[in-house]
Amino acid sequence: MITLTTAGESHGKGLFAIVEGIPQGLVIDLEKINGELFRRQSGYGRGARQKIESDKAEILSGVRNRTTLGSPVTLAVWNRDYENWKEFMAPEGCNTEERKVENVRPGHADLTGMKKFGVTDARNILERASARETAARVAAGGIFRQLLEALNIEVTGFVRSVGTSFDGATYTFEDVVKKRSAELAMLDRDVEKRAKKQIDSCKEAGDTLGGVIELRVRGLKSGFGSPMTYREKLDARIASTLMSVQAVKGVEVGCGFSLAEMKGSEAHDEIYYENGKFTRGSNRAGGIEGGASNGEELVFRVAMKPIPTLMRGLNTVNYNTKTPAKASTERSDVCAVPACEVVCESALLAEIAKVVSERLGGDTLSEWQKRYGELE
Amino acid sequence: MITLTTAGESHGKGLFAIVEGIPQGLVIDLEKINGELFRRQSGYGRGARQKIESDKAEILSGVRNRTTLGSPVTLAVWNRDYENWKEFMAPEGCNTEERKVENVRPGHADLTGMKKFGVTDARNILERASARETAARVAAGGIFRQLLEALNIEVTGFVRSVGTSFDGATYTFEDVVKKRSAELAMLDRDVEKRAKKQIDSCKEAGDTLGGVIELRVRGLKSGFGSPMTYREKLDARIASTLMSVQAVKGVEVGCGFSLAEMKGSEAHDEIYYENGKFTRGSNRAGGIEGGASNGEELVFRVAMKPIPTLMRGLNTVNYNTKTPAKASTERSDVCAVPACEVVCESALLAEIAKVVSERLGGDTLSEWQKRYGELE
Amino acid sequence: MITLTTAGESHGKGLFAIVEGIPQGLVIDLEKINGELFRRQSGYGRGARQKIESDKAEILSGVRNRTTLGSPVTLAVWNRDYENWKEFMAPEGCNTEERKVENVRPGHADLTGMKKFGVTDARNILERASARETAARVAAGGIFRQLLEALNIEVTGFVRSVGTSFDGATYTFEDVVKKRSAELAMLDRDVEKRAKKQIDSCKEAGDTLGGVIELRVRGLKSGFGSPMTYREKLDARIASTLMSVQAVKGVEVGCGFSLAEMKGSEAHDEIYYENGKFTRGSNRAGGIEGGASNGEELVFRVAMKPIPTLMRGLNTVNYNTKTPAKASTERSDVCAVPACEVVCESALLAEIAKVVSERLGGDTLSEWQKRYGELE
Amino acid sequence: MITLTTAGESHGKGLFAIVEGIPQGLVIDLEKINGELFRRQSGYGRGARQKIESDKAEILSGVRNRTTLGSPVTLAVWNRDYENWKEFMAPEGCNTEERKVENVRPGHADLTGMKKFGVTDARNILERASARETAARVAAGGIFRQLLEALNIEVTGFVRSVGTSFDGATYTFEDVVKKRSAELAMLDRDVEKRAKKQIDSCKEAGDTLGGVIELRVRGLKSGFGSPMTYREKLDARIASTLMSVQAVKGVEVGCGFSLAEMKGSEAHDEIYYENGKFTRGSNRAGGIEGGASNGEELVFRVAMKPIPTLMRGLNTVNYNTKTPAKASTERSDVCAVPACEVVCESALLAEIAKVVSERLGGDTLSEWQKRYGELE
Repeated sequence: MITLTTAGESHGKGLFAIVEGIPQGLVIDLEKINGELFRRQSGYGRGARQKIESDKAEILSGVRNRTTLGSPVTLAVWNRDYENWKEFMAPEGCNTEERKVENVRPGHADLTGMKKFGVTDARNILERASARETAARVAAGGIFRQLLEALNIEVTGFVRSVGTSFDGATYTFEDVVKKRSAELAMLDRDVEKRAKKQIDSCKEAGDTLGGVIELRVRGLKSGFGSPMTYREKLDARIASTLMSVQAVKGVEVGCGFSLAEMKGSEAHDEIYYENGKFTRGSNRAGGIEGGASNGEELVFRVAMKPIPTLMRGLNTVNYNTKTPAKASTERSDVCAVPACEVVCESALLAEIAKVVSERLGGDTLSEWQKRYGELE
Repeated sequence: MITLTTAGESHGKGLFAIVEGIPQGLVIDLEKINGELFRRQSGYGRGARQKIESDKAEILSGVRNRTTLGSPVTLAVWNRDYENWKEFMAPEGCNTEERKVENVRPGHADLTGMKKFGVTDARNILERASARETAARVAAGGIFRQLLEALNIEVTGFVRSVGTSFDGATYTFEDVVKKRSAELAMLDRDVEKRAKKQIDSCKEAGDTLGGVIELRVRGLKSGFGSPMTYREKLDARIASTLMSVQAVKGVEVGCGFSLAEMKGSEAHDEIYYENGKFTRGSNRAGGIEGGASNGEELVFRVAMKPIPTLMRGLNTVNYNTKTPAKASTERSDVCAVPACEVVCESALLAEIAKVVSERLGGDTLSEWQKRYGELE
Repeated sequence: MITLTTAGESHGKGLFAIVEGIPQGLVIDLEKINGELFRRQSGYGRGARQKIESDKAEILSGVRNRTTLGSPVTLAVWNRDYENWKEFMAPEGCNTEERKVENVRPGHADLTGMKKFGVTDARNILERASARETAARVAAGGIFRQLLEALNIEVTGFVRSVGTSFDGATYTFEDVVKKRSAELAMLDRDVEKRAKKQIDSCKEAGDTLGGVIELRVRGLKSGFGSPMTYREKLDARIASTLMSVQAVKGVEVGCGFSLAEMKGSEAHDEIYYENGKFTRGSNRAGGIEGGASNGEELVFRVAMKPIPTLMRGLNTVNYNTKTPAKASTERSDVCAVPACEVVCESALLAEIAKVVSERLGGDTLSEWQKRYGELE
Repeated sequence: MITLTTAGESHGKGLFAIVEGIPQGLVIDLEKINGELFRRQSGYGRGARQKIESDKAEILSGVRNRTTLGSPVTLAVWNRDYENWKEFMAPEGCNTEERKVENVRPGHADLTGMKKFGVTDARNILERASARETAARVAAGGIFRQLLEALNIEVTGFVRSVGTSFDGATYTFEDVVKKRSAELAMLDRDVEKRAKKQIDSCKEAGDTLGGVIELRVRGLKSGFGSPMTYREKLDARIASTLMSVQAVKGVEVGCGFSLAEMKGSEAHDEIYYENGKFTRGSNRAGGIEGGASNGEELVFRVAMKPIPTLMRGLNTVNYNTKTPAKASTERSDVCAVPACEVVCESALLAEIAKVVSERLGGDTLSEWQKRYGELE
């Protein structure tokens, strides 16, 4: 069974992941992992830090001569600017006064975390709560993607909206792969143009933007997840993994919230039998019925809130003095929706990989391929 | 640590749950549990079966003289009509031909489940996949509610919409408790009137309706859940438990999807300090920041799809003959949104109880109360 | 994946188990389960209670027409004497004064449990801590045995010693199956005769006896368990399940503790290749190398301490008054080693079933059989 | 809750561990961790490799300025000789022909692992199955020890025997701490002298030795672990963690296997009340009754088999050619019992820390200390 454990602070030595349960015999292309990391850092509307970094993954264990051993895979994404932060972050001893954060930022873990962990410096919270944690998940996602692709299971996604610039069109999986832009991961150039304008004006105003992301899984056969226990339900598991991504505040599958307004006669995907296969004329269920995949494409949508760190500073309080303050500004992104899209793909890849590993069992990739091939 | 394991088929002997980790010393009021079960079966728009049943919970273990022992609590909700179904369902041997279901119902687990479990009778799938499973979760929810109330943590909820009849007003926790109707669990009588009309006309048309449910948690202190690992995030855990409820297709926290359209300056809950406490002027985050409770009310909204079993029958296929057919009709509810609301409360109660048990540790209710009282 | 959850008090309504993850399509013979339960209650040296009871299992869910559905299987072993105990044990309300236990029994959970769970009546502890809990595990074991036998994996065991009457001979799996006596589950009639004499004289003296049990697994192919993570090691997992059985104080695999005295040249099982297979001349490792099964028979030995409830009463203290007392006597067995042997088999069956389910994945028995057949 | 995840190959870049759930506020002394690692590598009878290495731990995350943050702690023990092995082990690409191992070693994971993971080079198995994995566990053990010492819970251990040189004397916890030798971790100098002679003569003969290790826990209050579910039993959990240590083939608690020969009247620890406390005159139970700690010292004994890699080579087969061969010799230790003792302490520390974290809950060390202090 696959597990994913992550660790690491935003300005510490690096971000780390241990992935257990990858079968023996998967050939890993490190460049593909780095490609995912690159995409996580790119996008219109990102601030300075992202540009400096240029993350690379290093494999520390579990792989020999590019091939997985079946043992736990350790991944490191070293922080390039650790040298500059060592003085303030080193486990071995450091100056904890200088980079102290006391003005707790609304929308972040600062205030809650400080109370919970009994500290007076929000840096001790934000360093881990930071979205930089996702670098480890994206690196692991690069492994999961290669694993799933060996079974012809593909995951993609795109940005449906940034702020109020929304693209409501219908797209095939192919469309997403072909039309997705590098800048905002959107598919419609006109909507994207509007989105970029919104970003520009928010940047000027010291404000930020969120958006809606759509995720797709193609090639997952039917019967992953199960109606037999509530814990095994595929939609429940995916909802959890997506909601665990920083800044995500909503998850829906298929037509999601709009299903609540439809009548039953409009909402379900009728079943036909053609050319030796059960087929559907529609996919409003988003590929999941009764808590299991039904063989159609999985479709999930996710709402990302606007980044809670604003250059203009939200009203808050100094945690220690209790006096009014402007929230500390650790980062300066205006919009990180495309980055969030990458992270959501990684989170989804991880969960699909787990579900697949549990149903297939097995120790080697060739066993996985054989068993997967035998499923209907 | 609390765990909840459920079992049981829809027309089998009953529905069962084992709850581990309930601390010693909780006095259980069985009538309160039965009250939850009653509410799960009530509501405008329910069909015949629900009326016959009138579920009662029986405690089989873990409680002595109304007081929990600290040992696993076993709950049974016996099926009142098992005598009539015995002939077709008995574990000990039965007639499996007569109640065979072959016309797989769109929107249900039938088709997927039959392939997955290699059976030719959908009854072998639907008996467990049925929403009747939730009777066990609601019974357990009755225990969790009494446990959490001993810590002054309260959970409630209401129906925001049935079909297109939507109530967009703002309500306090108190409002929900006081104004919730018995029929549709709605708060606004005018909206409810419209909803009932929609239900009536759907009933005539052999159609069904879904809706939107809102859930609230009051009294949960800050710091439940954690930003430190993705698995511990409270919103991720709650999203999973809510999405695991039959027919739920979307989950959002706080302002959820509408946050994606807001600017950062509009989306976050600024922090103030008044009368010796950190306060907020708003609760758009729905009580969760950085994956942990922030001390505000938790607010979740859930989308329920329309019931997929329509009296008029959706188009489908006979699984075995592959010929076109009308979907089998096992139940005849038009709208089960109020029932789903009860189940969502139960699912939420279970997850909150788990999170609380992990942070408090402890073996007895008085330890729980002491430790909870000491949290900030 | 298979899980086993048990519940129930010794004099409550019954003992209960929910087993998740049993594949679809296993035909269950209830009589075989009852046979295991009967064996748990039998044996030379048992006191009165065991004779009255005559446990039977009832299947409450997960099985239809004798065949598993793939849904959670609920088992009940109803307590036949609950009617007599209802007055003192009923969850719905009862008299808790009359059967109060205050003289905490050495070797039992009484003292520790009372402190931990904050109670003044040891009955609130001993009812769950009692070895009667194992009735649920044995019933579940009956399911696991039938499941594993469908893969030609067999589990057996016997009593090597009672007190100082020790049988050190070498036995094949066949020997165990054929020669095991009903009275003490021993293989050598002379040793057994001595053991019975010891039991008789202990009975007269109001004393008790323990013993050593040996367990065998035949037909488990190589590669179950894994050297890749410490949690997956088969010997670690089995050690845990066996040590969890009431009264077990030691577990060893293969030659176990005597390996510590041997030289390396004497201790290991050299490898040969004959008739197209790797073979061994010996099995000192007990079928596990590097934390995984090596295809040889699994051999485990377990030490059971003498029953801690003595008719003559051990010295102790009244928990509430703190005055010296004789330990309460809830049961009157002299020797329960054969019963413990049955429970150890059940515990072993459960763990093997779990390990097998994780490696095979799959949803139906026929998938299990196919995949198991394909392993080397 | 505490979890421990390890990774890393014997001749790879290093050994790694992620520890989740360490509370905030523990000051970590890296030198103490290195002291544990040093002790793991020392001892009379070790071969060349151990001397070269001189392991040091590096903390990669979870600690800032020597103080834990409450976030996952990542530990690395870099392999000092990786530079020499890079050519044969690098994840990024390497020569896999030159260090190929085909003569599968009896007593190791080689044969089983090759079949399981479908490889023709035992190096792909042994690199992870190697006892070097324990370096990660020992490093983590160094953290757990410091955590538990902050609660005044101490763990120690010593070597009772090497081969047939057995020390059967009775020792207090103090004795162990004071008298334990650096060379063989034994307490009796005469026995140790004999043991060293045995090691010397084994070395000459190209043979190896195992032994028996005794472990102690002092200061653990009563009520850790639980009789309420079989999974929670402290002895079961500890048996698992100890059996997961490479080369361990037996585990017993208290008087263990000798309890099986005693009568009940001799085997249990009678209870008295003196000076306001419940006391015992003996500790044959090894500090655990009913699956929970009883406040006495925990006493466990473990059997380590002789190292399966002998300089003189055991008979085996070439996995690929199927021809007879002498087992490959990767290491040259004669006796690693003292090293195993250190690992067992680490494994025990990990499990105790997990059990403690579950009962205490809490996020900070000061919360832990307060709650632990309040237990009886």
